[in-house]
Amino acid sequence: MTAASPARPLVSVLESSRELVAPALQDAVRRYLSPRMGQVASYHHGWSDADGRPTGRWGGKLVRPALALLSARAAGHAQEAGVPAAVAVELVHNFSLLHDDIMDDDTKRRGRATAWTVFGVPNALLAGDALLTAATSVLLDSDGADPRSATAWLMTATQRMITGQTADIEFERRGDVTLAECVRMAGDKTGALLSCACSLGAALVGADTALVDRLAAFGEHVGLAFQLVDDLLGIWGDPATTGKAAGADLVARKKSLPVVAALQAASSTELWELYSGEEPLTEAEVARAAALVERDGGRDWALTEAARQIDAARECLAAADVPRAVGVDLAQVASFVVGREF
Amino acid sequence: MTAASPARPLVSVLESSRELVAPALQDAVRRYLSPRMGQVASYHHGWSDADGRPTGRWGGKLVRPALALLSARAAGHAQEAGVPAAVAVELVHNFSLLHDDIMDDDTKRRGRATAWTVFGVPNALLAGDALLTAATSVLLDSDGADPRSATAWLMTATQRMITGQTADIEFERRGDVTLAECVRMAGDKTGALLSCACSLGAALVGADTALVDRLAAFGEHVGLAFQLVDDLLGIWGDPATTGKAAGADLVARKKSLPVVAALQAASSTELWELYSGEEPLTEAEVARAAALVERDGGRDWALTEAARQIDAARECLAAADVPRAVGVDLAQVASFVVGREF
Repeated sequence: MTAASPARPLVSVLESSRELVAPALQDAVRRYLSPRMGQVASYHHGWSDADGRPTGRWGGKLVRPALALLSARAAGHAQEAGVPAAVAVELVHNFSLLHDDIMDDDTKRRGRATAWTVFGVPNALLAGDALLTAATSVLLDSDGADPRSATAWLMTATQRMITGQTADIEFERRGDVTLAECVRMAGDKTGALLSCACSLGAALVGADTALVDRLAAFGEHVGLAFQLVDDLLGIWGDPATTGKAAGADLVARKKSLPVVAALQAASSTELWELYSGEEPLTEAEVARAAALVERDGGRDWALTEAARQIDAARECLAAADVPRAVGVDLAQVASFVVGREF
Repeated sequence: MTAASPARPLVSVLESSRELVAPALQDAVRRYLSPRMGQVASYHHGWSDADGRPTGRWGGKLVRPALALLSARAAGHAQEAGVPAAVAVELVHNFSLLHDDIMDDDTKRRGRATAWTVFGVPNALLAGDALLTAATSVLLDSDGADPRSATAWLMTATQRMITGQTADIEFERRGDVTLAECVRMAGDKTGALLSCACSLGAALVGADTALVDRLAAFGEHVGLAFQLVDDLLGIWGDPATTGKAAGADLVARKKSLPVVAALQAASSTELWELYSGEEPLTEAEVARAAALVERDGGRDWALTEAARQIDAARECLAAADVPRAVGVDLAQVASFVVGREF
C-alpha cells in the first residue's frame, strides 16, 4: 500500500495535527475547567510549570489526537472535523494518567514530578475528574454530525480502560493469572483508547458503522502490538532509549506479557521462584530472570504475537478502504506508536 | 399552591420513585461496570456487604432521582421518561461521594466503612470514575428526545461540583475567605447537582429551555437552603437527630457558612482566635465558639438566608407553571431535602 503513495513524512503528519489540536486542547481546558483545575491540568500536560508559568511546550507527542484527525479524514472529511474527537481522546488519556499516577504512587512522569506530588492528591484526583467531564462536553458541544454516538463510543472505551486498570491492580496481587487474562487486560487498558482514537473522528462526522468498526479494530491491534513491544522493552530495552533502568519491569516483578507467557511453560519453576520472593532482586537475579523469560519462550511468544497484531492491524486498515494517503498516514503513525527500537 | 391540591404523602412520592429508579440503577451498574467495579459500587450504594452478599437494602433516600422523575412530569411526561435522568444524577452523586471520601480521608459514610477503607484507594477511585462514565452512557443510550442536551447539562453540573469541591479544599487552608466566596462554593458543591436533578428529566424529554431553566433555578435555591440548614445543624444540631457529635463542624474548625458570616463581623476577634489555634478545641471552647457565632450574627444570617432561598425556590416553582400535582410533589421533596429539625 505504501509503495506508490506520496507519503508525507511522519514528522509532518504529527506536526500538522499538533498545530491544530494543541491550541484546541488548551482552549478546552480554559473553557471547561475552573482556573485552579486548569492550573493543575496545564502543569500535568507540560504547558506550564508548578507556579503556572508557561513552558512554551506542547506536552506529549499527541499521537492519539493525530489518529483521531486521520480517522475523520478516513471518512472523507477534512482533518479539522476531527478536532473535537482529537481533543476528547487526549483529555481522557490525561484523566487516566492523573489517576494512574495517584494509584501507582508514581512520582515521575515525562521526566517531571507527577501532579499529585506537586498539588496534592485531592487536586490531582479532581483534575482527572474535570478532564473526563470536559472530554464529554467537548464532543457534545461540537458541531459534528453525530456527537451522541461519538460520546457513547468514547465512554465505552473509557469504561474498558477502567476495567483494564482494575485488572492490572488485581493481577499484581494474584498468583494464578492466565496469559489470556493478561492479553484481555492489555486490550482493555491500552487497546481500548487507541482503538477509540483511530475511529472517534469517523464516528463524530457520522461515518457508517462498518468503517468505524474497521478503524476501531485497526487501533485495537495497534494497541496490543504497542503493549507487547513496550513489555519487551521493559525487559530487554536499552536504558539509554527507554529512559528506564535495565530490566525495569523485572526489578518491579511486573507480570508483563512476556513474563506471564514464560510462566506458563512447564519449565518455569525457577522464574516462579524469583517472582515469589519478597526481597528486591539483585542485578544478577534480574539478568537471570530475563534469561529465563527468554528460555521459557516468553520473548519469542511476545515477538510473534506483536508481529501477528501488526499484520492484523494492516488487514483491518486494508479492509477499511480509506483514501490512499490517509491509509499511509495511519500506518505511519501506528508504526511510530508501536515501533520503538528493541 | 398546596391548599387545594390532592397531595400525595411525601413517603409515597419517594417510594414510588424508588421502586422505579432503584432497579434501573442496579441495572446500569451491572450493564456498564466490570464485575469487580460493580462489586465496589454495590457495596458503596449499600446494596451488598463487603463480600458481595446482598443486604436487601436500596441504599440512600434517592431524593435526587425523585426530583429528576418529577422534572420529567413537570414537562408533561410520565415519570418513567425521567428514569435515565434519575439514574444518571444518582450515579454522578455517588461518583462524587466515592472520590470525596478518599480526599477527605473519611472512614464512615451512612454508618458503614467507606469503600476505600474496604477495597483500597485504587478500587474506590476507579469505581468513582466508572460511575461517572456510566452516568454519561445511561443518558446517551436512553430513548429520550434530547439525550445530547441532557448529557451536556449533567456535565456542566458535574464540572461545577468539581469546582466546588476544589474550592472547599482550598478554603480550609486559606485565612481570607469571603462570605461571597463561600456562598458560591456551596452553590457549586451542593446546588449544582440538585439544580440538575430538578431539571434533567425535563431536559431529557426535550422540554423548552425556559422550563428547564426555571426548574434548575428552583433546585439551585433548594441546594443552597439545604447547605445553610446543614451548616446550622453542624453547630446547633441535636446529635440524636444529626448522627454527628454536638458542634461537629466547630470541633473540626470547619469554615461553614454561619462561621464565615460571623467572622466578617467587626467583633469577631475571639472567634478568629479560636479558629486560628492548632490544638483540639475543648468542650467549653466549642460551646464558646457556638455562642460567638450567634453573637456575631452568623446564626441569624444563615437563618435569614435559608428562608430567603426557600422563598426564591417557591417563586421559581410558581414561575415554572408546572402541573399542580407535580408542583406539590416537588415542593414536598424539596422541603424534605431542606427541612431537617434544628
